[in-house]
Amino acid sequence: GQLFKVAVLPGDGIGPEVMAEALKVLDAVEKKYDVKFERTHANVGGAGIDLEGRALPETTVNICKAADAILFGSVGGPKWETLPPDEQPERGALLPLRKIFGLYANLRPAIIFPSLTSASSLKEEVIAGGFDILVIRELTGGIYFSQPKGIEGAGRDRVGVDTMRYSVPEIERITHVAFQAARKRGKKVCSIDKANVLSTSVLWREIVINIAKEYPDVELSHMYVDNAAMQLVKWPKQFDVILCENMFGDILSDEAAMLTGSLGMLPSASLAEGTFGMYEPSGGSAPDIAGQGIANPIAQILSAGMMLRYSFGMIEAADAIDNAVARVLDQGYRTRDIYQEKAGEKLVNTKEIGDAIIAGL
Amino acid sequence: GQLFKVAVLPGDGIGPEVMAEALKVLDAVEKKYDVKFERTHANVGGAGIDLEGRALPETTVNICKAADAILFGSVGGPKWETLPPDEQPERGALLPLRKIFGLYANLRPAIIFPSLTSASSLKEEVIAGGFDILVIRELTGGIYFSQPKGIEGAGRDRVGVDTMRYSVPEIERITHVAFQAARKRGKKVCSIDKANVLSTSVLWREIVINIAKEYPDVELSHMYVDNAAMQLVKWPKQFDVILCENMFGDILSDEAAMLTGSLGMLPSASLAEGTFGMYEPSGGSAPDIAGQGIANPIAQILSAGMMLRYSFGMIEAADAIDNAVARVLDQGYRTRDIYQEKAGEKLVNTKEIGDAIIAGL
Ligand SMILES: CC(C)[C@H](C(=O)O)[C@@H](O)C(=O)O
Ligand SMILES: CC(C)[C@H](C(=O)O)[C@@H](O)C(=O)O
Repeated sequence: GQLFKVAVLPGDGIGPEVMAEALKVLDAVEKKYDVKFERTHANVGGAGIDLEGRALPETTVNICKAADAILFGSVGGPKWETLPPDEQPERGALLPLRKIFGLYANLRPAIIFPSLTSASSLKEEVIAGGFDILVIRELTGGIYFSQPKGIEGAGRDRVGVDTMRYSVPEIERITHVAFQAARKRGKKVCSIDKANVLSTSVLWREIVINIAKEYPDVELSHMYVDNAAMQLVKWPKQFDVILCENMFGDILSDEAAMLTGSLGMLPSASLAEGTFGMYEPSGGSAPDIAGQGIANPIAQILSAGMMLRYSFGMIEAADAIDNAVARVLDQGYRTRDIYQEKAGEKLVNTKEIGDAIIAGL
Repeated sequence: GQLFKVAVLPGDGIGPEVMAEALKVLDAVEKKYDVKFERTHANVGGAGIDLEGRALPETTVNICKAADAILFGSVGGPKWETLPPDEQPERGALLPLRKIFGLYANLRPAIIFPSLTSASSLKEEVIAGGFDILVIRELTGGIYFSQPKGIEGAGRDRVGVDTMRYSVPEIERITHVAFQAARKRGKKVCSIDKANVLSTSVLWREIVINIAKEYPDVELSHMYVDNAAMQLVKWPKQFDVILCENMFGDILSDEAAMLTGSLGMLPSASLAEGTFGMYEPSGGSAPDIAGQGIANPIAQILSAGMMLRYSFGMIEAADAIDNAVARVLDQGYRTRDIYQEKAGEKLVNTKEIGDAIIAGL
C-alpha cells in the first residue's frame, strides 16, 4: 500500500474539533483503501503564538516540509487581535506558508448543496437548482507579495505604498490550472480583471487569451472585477470557473462563498507545482462556539477529500467522501449552523455528523 | 435670483434620453425656485470619439472648466469596445475628468426603495424594511493613478506593474467626507481596508482612527474588504456609511448597488474640494434599449438632485426631487426595467415617468 505523510495543523477555535472528525475520515479511508496516512501534528496560528512564540513556528515549517500535504484547520481569535498585523494568527501563518511552499493556486469551490438552498440570502428563484462555482485564485503574487511595500516618511508626510506585479509565467501557470479545472467541469472560464485601469490586468488578459488557445474546448470570457461583484449577486449560475489574480480572488471568492449561505461547508485547496498542497476550510475559527462540540466539520472533511484528490491522486476515495457528505445532508443531519427546524432534519453535534459521514463511506 | 452654470454631458446609449428628463426637472426647479441653470452641452464618451476624435475632447474639458458642476449621462457601447483600454469611452472620459477636476470624493448611495424591494435578488427577510447604504469612495488616488504603472520588458519576460499609494492628506480629506455624511444619517462609518496585507491600509486605518476622534458622535468600525464583500450579502442593513479607498470602493459600491436590484435608480456624486462636482447615474449606457424612449430616467434625475444638494446648496429643491421620485414610485409608475406586472403598477415610458415626477414637484 501507499504511504502519505500529512502535516496536521489544527490551529485555533473550532479547528481542533473539526480536525478530529477529518482525521476519523482518514482512518476510515485507510480501512477501505490500501493506503496509510502518517500524520504529524504541529502548532499554528494562536496556538503557535501561545506555545512557541509565533504564528508559524519553525518546527511547524519543518514538519510541513517533511510532509506530502498540509491539512490545515483554522486560526485566529479575539485573544490575538491586538497583535501587529504581521504577527496575527491568520496573516502570520497563511502568507508565509503560501510563500515558503509556493502555493500559487488557490481553489475555492462555492457550491449550493441542493438540500441547503434555503440557507442562502439569495432568493429561491435566483438559486433554484443550485450553483457550482470554482474560484481559482492566484495566491503567491500580485499586491500581496510585491515590492516596494511599506510606509515611507514621517508624520503627516507619510505615504503608504503597495505594489501589484505580475510576470508572464505567473499568469500562465494559474491560467493553465483554471482551464484544466474547467475541462473537468462546465468548460467555461471567466477571467476577472480591471484591464481598463490596471497594467497588470492588461498583461493578464493578453496572456489568458493566449493560453486559452491551447484549450479550444473551453469557452473563455472576461469580466471587470466590479461587474463580477455585481453579476455574482445577480445571477451566480452564469459562472463555472472564475479565474482571478490574488486580491480580486480574495474578495470574489468570499462573496461567492457567502452567496451559498453555507460557509461552514466549503473546503479549499492551495496547490504548489507538483503534488504538494495545503487544504483548509473556507470559514474561520468561530471562537464563539469553540470547545462546545457543536461546530460543523464538513468543510474540514471535504478539505481532506480535496487532499486525497489533488495531492494523493485518490480520486475514488475523494468522490466517496463528497458523496458521503451529500448523503448525510440528504438524510437530514444538521449541525446547528445549518439547522433550519424543518421536518426531516436531525440536529446533531460535531462527532455525530462525523460518524454519520464515516458510516456512509 | 442665483445663476448656476451646468456642463451637460449626455454621452452615449440611453444617456441623451434620460438627460432630457433631468433637464426638464431643472426647468421645473427654475420655475419653482428663484434660480437659473445655464446649460452648455458637450460631447463625451463614444459621442466624443465619433464627433471630436476622443472620449474627452478639449472643448468638453473647457466647457466643464467654465461650469459650476457637470451633469453626466452615461458612456460606452459595443461600437467602441475594440479600442485600446485608454481610449475607450468610459475609462477615457471618466478617469481624466476625475483627475483634471480633483473629484476625490465619490458618493454612491445604495438604497432599496420600499416599493421595489422585490427587485433585489436578496430574500425578502434579508431586506425587509429596506436598507440605505452610502458608499464613500476615494476617487483620485490609490492604484488607479499612482506610478509606476505599466508593462516592462519584452515577450515572456514582460512584467506588469501597478502601484497603490496613499498619502496622509488624501486619506484625511476623504475620511472627513465620510464622517460628515454619517452625521447627517445613521451616524455610523465602517472603514474598509486590507490592513492585514496592505501597507496603504495600515496607514489608512491609523488615519481614519485619528480623524474619527473629531467626530465623537459617529461610531467607527473597521472591516477587511473580503469580509465586507460577504457582509453586504449576508446582512446589508448593518451598514450606514461605508468608507473605501478607490479600488475597494469600485468593487463594493457596485456590489451594494446590485443588491438593491434597482441599478437604474441610483445616482452618484463625485466631489472636488469646494463646491464643484460631477453627477451621474450609477448604471451604464444600456445600448440595447437606447433610442426606444423606454429607459428609466430616475437615476439621472436623482443625480441632478444631488447636484442641487452638493454643488448648489439647494437642499429644499433636492429634497423635493427625492420626494417626487418616491411618490411616483408609490403611485405605481414603472418603466420597463422595474415593472413587475403587479396590481397597481402602471407601465410608462421615459417621458411619462419624467412628466409624473415633475408634476409631483
Ligand atoms: C488572512 C488573509 C491574509 C487571507 C488573505 O487575504 O489571503 C485570507 O483572507 C484568505 O483569503 O485566506
Ligand atoms: C470605467 C471605470 C474606469 C470606472 C472605475 O473603475 O472607476 C467605473 O467602473 C466606475 O466605477 O466609475
